[in-house]
Amino acid sequence: MLEIGNQYKEEFSISQDQVEIFAQISGDDNPLHLDADFAASTPFKRPIIHGFLGGSIFSKILGTKFPGPGSVYLKQVLDFKRPMFADNVYEAVATIKDINRDKHTAIIETAIFDKSNGKIVVSGEATILNSQRI
Amino acid sequence: MLEIGNQYKEEFSISQDQVEIFAQISGDDNPLHLDADFAASTPFKRPIIHGFLGGSIFSKILGTKFPGPGSVYLKQVLDFKRPMFADNVYEAVATIKDINRDKHTAIIETAIFDKSNGKIVVSGEATILNSQRI
Repeated sequence: MLEIGNQYKEEFSISQDQVEIFAQISGDDNPLHLDADFAASTPFKRPIIHGFLGGSIFSKILGTKFPGPGSVYLKQVLDFKRPMFADNVYEAVATIKDINRDKHTAIIETAIFDKSNGKIVVSGEATILNSQRI
Repeated sequence: MLEIGNQYKEEFSISQDQVEIFAQISGDDNPLHLDADFAASTPFKRPIIHGFLGGSIFSKILGTKFPGPGSVYLKQVLDFKRPMFADNVYEAVATIKDINRDKHTAIIETAIFDKSNGKIVVSGEATILNSQRI
């Protein structure tokens, strides 16, 4: 059973192919994510990953690993502090902040760091229900 | 230019094919979303859509329509109040709550309603930067 303070970390990267597929299934074809010429005219200079796609690493972690299958999302806060880029290496960190055994819910701090410089790129917090694992 | 109180609405549905593609690109293959037999054993009785996929309608709306291309996500809060199901008809509603013209940012209330009964399924709030449109 998970306890307060338990932590799970996972390194990951997102490819431009994943960005293009996400654009198709979400309908978000904002050129900031897809068009290198458009992105060159922005402060980012190159395409950035959709925030919802970068943040979805927590959908994977909470839904498959920590606490795992059966997890139901009740809430997610995402603070996008810095842009995320295709093929960069990131580390997602999930930390249990609070647990309610009666309701089978947990509040989990969710953060993504750039592995190359240690800077935080996404911070936030999830609330999860998992009647088998919490 | 957008003003406080401006509102954008869009009806949408999400197919099980979109759910399966999202599972592949996010890595979230939680059986709650993919396995009808597993889902039958839960209070939902049938597979529910990934919260990140349902919420991504706001990635589309804010990034392509309201305010539109060039939008950069600064923050998103998602409160998942009820499950979302494939092929159901939903309405996403984005409402401008506050604007900072100097910083070119807006706070936008983001809500999804079930069209069949009017109940809210997702509530939340986005903060967006768009240097051309805000």
